[in-house]
Amino acid sequence: MPNPLPADSVGLVQPQTAHFSEPLPLDGGKELPHYDLVYESYGQLNAKKSNAILICHALSGDQHAAGYNSLEDKKPGWWESAIGPGKAINTDHFFVVAVNNLGGCKGSTGPSSLNPETGKHYGPDFPIVTVRDWVNSQQRFMRYLGIDVWAAVIGGSLGGMQVLQWSMDYPEQIKNAVVIAAAPKLSAQNIAFNEVARQAIISDPDFYAGRYYEHDAKPRRGVMLARMLGHITYLSDDAMRAKFGRELRSGKINYGFDVEFQVESYLRYQGRSFVDRFDANTYLLMTKALDYFDPAAEHGDSFAAALKPATAQFLVLSFTSDWRFAPSRSQEIVQALVEAGKSVSYATITANHGHDAFLMPIPDYLNILSAYLQRIADEFPT
Amino acid sequence: MPNPLPADSVGLVQPQTAHFSEPLPLDGGKELPHYDLVYESYGQLNAKKSNAILICHALSGDQHAAGYNSLEDKKPGWWESAIGPGKAINTDHFFVVAVNNLGGCKGSTGPSSLNPETGKHYGPDFPIVTVRDWVNSQQRFMRYLGIDVWAAVIGGSLGGMQVLQWSMDYPEQIKNAVVIAAAPKLSAQNIAFNEVARQAIISDPDFYAGRYYEHDAKPRRGVMLARMLGHITYLSDDAMRAKFGRELRSGKINYGFDVEFQVESYLRYQGRSFVDRFDANTYLLMTKALDYFDPAAEHGDSFAAALKPATAQFLVLSFTSDWRFAPSRSQEIVQALVEAGKSVSYATITANHGHDAFLMPIPDYLNILSAYLQRIADEFPT
Repeated sequence: MPNPLPADSVGLVQPQTAHFSEPLPLDGGKELPHYDLVYESYGQLNAKKSNAILICHALSGDQHAAGYNSLEDKKPGWWESAIGPGKAINTDHFFVVAVNNLGGCKGSTGPSSLNPETGKHYGPDFPIVTVRDWVNSQQRFMRYLGIDVWAAVIGGSLGGMQVLQWSMDYPEQIKNAVVIAAAPKLSAQNIAFNEVARQAIISDPDFYAGRYYEHDAKPRRGVMLARMLGHITYLSDDAMRAKFGRELRSGKINYGFDVEFQVESYLRYQGRSFVDRFDANTYLLMTKALDYFDPAAEHGDSFAAALKPATAQFLVLSFTSDWRFAPSRSQEIVQALVEAGKSVSYATITANHGHDAFLMPIPDYLNILSAYLQRIADEFPT
Repeated sequence: MPNPLPADSVGLVQPQTAHFSEPLPLDGGKELPHYDLVYESYGQLNAKKSNAILICHALSGDQHAAGYNSLEDKKPGWWESAIGPGKAINTDHFFVVAVNNLGGCKGSTGPSSLNPETGKHYGPDFPIVTVRDWVNSQQRFMRYLGIDVWAAVIGGSLGGMQVLQWSMDYPEQIKNAVVIAAAPKLSAQNIAFNEVARQAIISDPDFYAGRYYEHDAKPRRGVMLARMLGHITYLSDDAMRAKFGRELRSGKINYGFDVEFQVESYLRYQGRSFVDRFDANTYLLMTKALDYFDPAAEHGDSFAAALKPATAQFLVLSFTSDWRFAPSRSQEIVQALVEAGKSVSYATITANHGHDAFLMPIPDYLNILSAYLQRIADEFPT
């Protein structure tokens, strides 16, 4: 933890746990009899409870979006650049809540949790959850917090899909929907990358059909490969060129299979460090939620028809160098919103960082987000 | 084998073996004391030996470029669409030779060959080979055939890199250089994809540090993953959309980890069938040859300077939807050739197939290739 604490950080925060004992029916036909959701919150809920913002996380995100969980933390939460006093998502004005999604591995009930009925880890018995299931669980969580309406729901990538789902399923409970670097559904290529990642994990002999916890094992190789592959799709070709080029780690070619190029070193490091902090079964679940997201499917493949119930104001953002969910995918969202007669603002931000841009402190990006949210804040007394 | 035999096929062909006992010094500092190269040839060498064309293969290619090896073959060679009587690479006019690269697994000496000194498979003891090493071995092979000059050397992808190397290292021995869907060097992203593929293979417990032959094993999972990943980079996003869309294999979502989308089924099939026909160590070697190719590096990062010695006429071709080696990469080659004052023709072919386009029967593509080669054929009596 930096000393002194940065003045624009929310500072020390502790995750909290909300327990739910009402069974949650799931898209896949099963139900979760009871579950925990772990969350963090920043800023103060006002008396009218009108200043609450929900942050939806992406594939490998969690509830720790801002601040520091302990004095030993070397890094703050994953969206520290956007959330804090005076920042784009201004905690001087807003009560900001981030929740670890159901099926996650950072405290919310998921495959690595103990199943109270068996005393063992859920593992592969944890049901497949969808974006809609997450939104339903988040809506219960909203009631738990005593909040009737979100001033905004905000998310990037898979988080943006949750924002879209919120706007369709609970239109009266979300005033603003901020959808960043998302898509109305995955392309075949997106699904293909997910499938290779899944196969890497599932085919790892240490996966034990998802019951690796009981074998005191971890599918390290598989998760590492999945994460390495993921990182290629998060960075743009240009960003990789700028970051690594073809730089040799030792300055010369060694004619062997050890790390030679800087980009190899980076990927192996990213892969290895991910293994220690993420659960393989959760990774599988998250990729499936991505694959399944396709609200248009139930509406004759018309996304505009799916968006019909929405009443929120929309802000849609994309980044020029993002090839995982390219600007054209965000434009599909915008087009459907326009077709459905909704209110939408849209910007493509020039950025070299690829899909990762949505997590980066890019001034143009944060300025747009800040201006949009400031307008909302101006509507209620601080 | 189709019955009757297609009239425009070279028909039944047999691979032949050329043995070399003069040691071959390699870029990496080692040498191969002796080695075999396996090849096929189509058409007739003319009396002046002026009509010979060398075909250089790509990552997973081999010497079987055209025709059928047996009456039981279900599929012809990998470039049947381009090579044959009356086809673009017209065997009525040209003597066409295709050779399995050193380090390969289809008969030429490689990691899966027996090392005569130990009686065991080379495995990881087989030295790393570079594009330059291949070209040197192909040049010896040329002398073995009694050919003094190639009418043309032709190759796509990694094959195109060999063509470029030929033009620089043996300028007097190559009259025309046809470089298809290639690049002057890999980008960091290209290297990153190769690295994930290599890690998939190397981290497979059945890899046994490359000595899997002696364990009666095969790193099947790793090779399958590598090939699945490769296929994503060979196809364009559009081609995947056109081919699979988001079609569900069973027509409905099953909320599990079995194959659901058609694209998953396709990738798994491609991965599995590749395992049976390709050697993991060869795959590793081929990706390293790709990574290392960078002729400009020895010339102050000027590809034009590297191309200085070349005297061949160049034809450079690329495909609009290729994102592995995009048209912009071919244009880098063209620009360097122009800067070096060389003679070059260039075309970008509109095609939806991604990198795979170079293997496809695309009329525009084959017509350009045909017209270019016909002009050469017109220069000598058939």
